[in-house]
Amino acid sequence: MEFDLIARIRSRADPSRADVVLGIGDDAALLAPPPGQHLVVAMDTLNAGVHFPAGTAPADIGWKALAVNLSDLAAMGATPAWCTLSLSLPAGDDGFVDGFLDGFLALAAAHGVALVGGDTTRGPLSACVTAHGFIAPGSGLRRAGAGVGDDVWVSGTLGDAAAALAQWQAGDAIDQALRVRLERPVPRVALGLALRGIASACIDVSDGLLADLGHLCLASGVGAEVEVDALPASTALVAAFDAQARRGLQATGGDDYELCFSAPPARREAIAAMPGTTRIGRIVAGDGVRAMTSAGAPWQPVHAGYQHFA
Amino acid sequence: MEFDLIARIRSRADPSRADVVLGIGDDAALLAPPPGQHLVVAMDTLNAGVHFPAGTAPADIGWKALAVNLSDLAAMGATPAWCTLSLSLPAGDDGFVDGFLDGFLALAAAHGVALVGGDTTRGPLSACVTAHGFIAPGSGLRRAGAGVGDDVWVSGTLGDAAAALAQWQAGDAIDQALRVRLERPVPRVALGLALRGIASACIDVSDGLLADLGHLCLASGVGAEVEVDALPASTALVAAFDAQARRGLQATGGDDYELCFSAPPARREAIAAMPGTTRIGRIVAGDGVRAMTSAGAPWQPVHAGYQHFA
Repeated sequence: MEFDLIARIRSRADPSRADVVLGIGDDAALLAPPPGQHLVVAMDTLNAGVHFPAGTAPADIGWKALAVNLSDLAAMGATPAWCTLSLSLPAGDDGFVDGFLDGFLALAAAHGVALVGGDTTRGPLSACVTAHGFIAPGSGLRRAGAGVGDDVWVSGTLGDAAAALAQWQAGDAIDQALRVRLERPVPRVALGLALRGIASACIDVSDGLLADLGHLCLASGVGAEVEVDALPASTALVAAFDAQARRGLQATGGDDYELCFSAPPARREAIAAMPGTTRIGRIVAGDGVRAMTSAGAPWQPVHAGYQHFA
Repeated sequence: MEFDLIARIRSRADPSRADVVLGIGDDAALLAPPPGQHLVVAMDTLNAGVHFPAGTAPADIGWKALAVNLSDLAAMGATPAWCTLSLSLPAGDDGFVDGFLDGFLALAAAHGVALVGGDTTRGPLSACVTAHGFIAPGSGLRRAGAGVGDDVWVSGTLGDAAAALAQWQAGDAIDQALRVRLERPVPRVALGLALRGIASACIDVSDGLLADLGHLCLASGVGAEVEVDALPASTALVAAFDAQARRGLQATGGDDYELCFSAPPARREAIAAMPGTTRIGRIVAGDGVRAMTSAGAPWQPVHAGYQHFA
């Protein structure tokens, strides 16, 4: 079976990048990295029942499996190039592959990413992806690098994916605008590229804003203050949840795949001119992340960190 | 949990390669490929209950998860360099990681391979690995390239892993020498390097000799004749199975992780001087693989191809 499935994937993968010397179909892929660039490698897995509900459409799973990896490359400021896919499928589920590839390859094409290898195996439904990109030496964004006095920024809006999940778990109708944020997250690749040389540190928001900003602070040896009332919200989120519930989703909900980054105040104007950026706080001496209301009072989330739905 | 597990893995991964600019701990790894080389990328997953019995020791799973990927690099003639690991673990199984790393990192150290990234997730036990290596442009081994009249060779001995699995499935005592071949396969990295410029085509034997030689023939547009009586057998295999059963295990059993390759007869002496190489047949015009006895009679396996134990 593995051979047939690989042939099916191979027939749909676009090997048109000139730097793909040998794509799907041998024991390994042969690739030609651009001279003088660093290679950027991210690897993330989505498991059925943990990272997506069992009934999720195959195309959405395919999209998201690649999106979460491109989001990691975006957080480094890298230009995506190649990916490999290891897909585990229960016996009898081979029809899943075509739908999965619809979503996966649509996102790959949007970013000029070539699927160059991987494998298919029997097992519980799971998609593991390794994404490769490039970056000029010294220009990459890291979690380390935030300095005291820097601003803290975030892209897009926060909490939509967690809101869709909350509606699903409650058995409510799921707002379509929220659902698409959960099922089709958009990796902020262009923003990551624009932030090179501007942001002092960067991370993508997968576990929840406060948790991921905490990782950035830990790596940078600093603390942060975040004003929860300043966190960007979509109109769909505002319409569907009251202010208290909304703030919890924005501050601690997972699966946003926005970029959270720091930058010196001198960069404020340049960053504000980038589409969909919001200043939400500042880097301070010490450690940890303090969330506050606009009145300056401490704010405490009901749930800290990301709660997977399973 | 993911953060703690990653910290534990990070503390044990050896980042001492000078070409690892940034290893575990950020959104992605930063790596410096050697100038002028091609990057070789392989990705394979092991799932519990499919690729190994549920009771397999964690260290053996760790070893094998990396070994099957280094075997793919060996089949390309590549020099291994870096790997990433995505490990899915059921809740409460965090203690598994230390044993897993014992085996994984022992093999990594033996080949100078740095573990540079990946992720840990909740889910059914599964280990997905991406291995990266280098090769000079034009010098890599491929499945395509076998020419009519070439010899067919294989490394090591065949059928030991399948024999251990057969004993396990029958409820018999498992011969220790066979078991180690199943649980601790040795990727033939040095042989793959030695075969550059000598072999005309190469594949690693994971699905069974006849099946994998069939893939090599298909890619090369040729056929092959293999003499089953010439297939190399370990003394443990000879002692444990009669000739008929043994031939079946050698010709169609999976998980050998030996190299099967073709080469012109002019290379016969050079290859015979390499440790553990056996000439087993020849490349012919046409397609498909014909297995024969030493008397020239057609030989038919009881089971064609690799049967996973589950």
